[in-house]
Amino acid sequence: MKKTFDDLFESLSQISRKKVSVAVAQDTEVLLAVKAAKERNIADAILVGDADKIKEIADELNMDLSGYEVVDVKDPIEATRVAVKYVHDGEADMYMKGLIDTKDFLKSVLDKEIGLRTGKPLSHVCVFDMEGVDQLLFLTDVAFIPYPTLEDKANIIRNTVEICNACGIENPKVAPLATVEVVNPKMPVTVEAAELTKMNEEGQISGCIVDGPLSLDLAICPEAAMHKGATDRKIVGDADILLFPDIHAGNILYKGLVHFAKVTNGNLITGTAAPVILTSRSDSFEVKVNSLALGALVADSLKKNAK
Amino acid sequence: MKKTFDDLFESLSQISRKKVSVAVAQDTEVLLAVKAAKERNIADAILVGDADKIKEIADELNMDLSGYEVVDVKDPIEATRVAVKYVHDGEADMYMKGLIDTKDFLKSVLDKEIGLRTGKPLSHVCVFDMEGVDQLLFLTDVAFIPYPTLEDKANIIRNTVEICNACGIENPKVAPLATVEVVNPKMPVTVEAAELTKMNEEGQISGCIVDGPLSLDLAICPEAAMHKGATDRKIVGDADILLFPDIHAGNILYKGLVHFAKVTNGNLITGTAAPVILTSRSDSFEVKVNSLALGALVADSLKKNAK
Repeated sequence: MKKTFDDLFESLSQISRKKVSVAVAQDTEVLLAVKAAKERNIADAILVGDADKIKEIADELNMDLSGYEVVDVKDPIEATRVAVKYVHDGEADMYMKGLIDTKDFLKSVLDKEIGLRTGKPLSHVCVFDMEGVDQLLFLTDVAFIPYPTLEDKANIIRNTVEICNACGIENPKVAPLATVEVVNPKMPVTVEAAELTKMNEEGQISGCIVDGPLSLDLAICPEAAMHKGATDRKIVGDADILLFPDIHAGNILYKGLVHFAKVTNGNLITGTAAPVILTSRSDSFEVKVNSLALGALVADSLKKNAK
Repeated sequence: MKKTFDDLFESLSQISRKKVSVAVAQDTEVLLAVKAAKERNIADAILVGDADKIKEIADELNMDLSGYEVVDVKDPIEATRVAVKYVHDGEADMYMKGLIDTKDFLKSVLDKEIGLRTGKPLSHVCVFDMEGVDQLLFLTDVAFIPYPTLEDKANIIRNTVEICNACGIENPKVAPLATVEVVNPKMPVTVEAAELTKMNEEGQISGCIVDGPLSLDLAICPEAAMHKGATDRKIVGDADILLFPDIHAGNILYKGLVHFAKVTNGNLITGTAAPVILTSRSDSFEVKVNSLALGALVADSLKKNAK
């Protein structure tokens, strides 16, 4: 049965209500998403930033601020530090970027004292609910690590498996993608894909099933896998996680599908102590709300695992 | 106005009828495409291969062989040599792969005496007529050169500009793709993209307009380019040629769009003395026929330029 973002929204009803801390919250698009998240019972919010500007935007949006904690911190860098500390201290469950440069926002995430480091390397996951594919797809890394090494890729898989689990997907199937589905020494990407598969078989990467190298069609089109006679593989068009050779391959596919296929998506930074939502200005309202929903599920899962 | 494969089919009526030489022609899918090409006035054919088997398949397809030259060469390798020589000698205008390994087929293309070398490096182009994009898109290289160097990329552009010209597109816009649209020294792909742009400005790559690095949305979505305020670029969502960082990035996008967007496409090997059609078994009938149409236009253009 097709798994969709609606399924994720539904499973939110089974967890306790979460809270997002927003850094430099005086941003119309972000406040719109936060407002929707509250209305849809996804999460409450602490809004850290310029309180006057936040109020101004809220008035424009007919957004009643009485249901929010507004923390007045005019300096943007200081606002990120205050906002991330709420999450660090457990007073909020997830952390969201507002009107601030990605670089400065990430600096607060990585702060050794008040940030959200876990010792694990950070990566990015984009969750796709795409017409024509039954399973949710977890694309990684299309935005954060430019040229992941083999070790980076192992860590990216580990980070992403946690996100799958939070979405109710146990033992996800991981496809390290390439042009071809056989190892070719002239294509290092295929060699790495085979190494990741071996690391999985030997238990160094656990909680998932890795099978690579795989071409995209064999990874997510069961018909193509049948047609090419690849039915003895561990993945037959049913991959959950798509691991890209590098950021360019991932980002180009991501943009191609977002613009030309029918996709609903949400994004998170992974490998952090709590979910980090770093959507960009060009992401739609829906993407921001979906990311908050995703963050709430992941926050809940991280808490359960920490117990 | 949207440019489509139908426009290419229409422009075939303005050129002389072409002829394709097929190596190891005893292949049902290939013969079906050749039959359609004849019926649609795209090209006649010389069928080189096992004449008995060709006749057997033709009977199954209700294909009247009287309109074709059938050349009986039972040995597949020998058949490639006989077939490519027809093109080399100008008795046929383009060369198509039948029931033979790609490696052996390419060996005949690269043969120094009877092959189709020009001194230029070979590359691959895939032409997309995609719903939601007004211009035809020329994707390169999604299938042939694994990790092109800067020099390779310059040559790939030169090869592909010729194909654009044959399709009636003068001075095509070339987008060297990456994740981002600014140069980042930590991402060599962006540096190369900028170098290609400079080589174009200095005239080392001519007959086209290169503007990179570009993200896919800025390259082919005018709305995205507007939204991101990238209106001062030479390319504003209107790229004709999409140059990929490497084969993996290209191939993954190619497969993503073919399976999940609405695309009609055709493929050619470029940089050869005559068009070479190397479709794979998984390519549909339509892709094979489109490739033949594309080949006919390119053959005509190459002949005119040689005069």
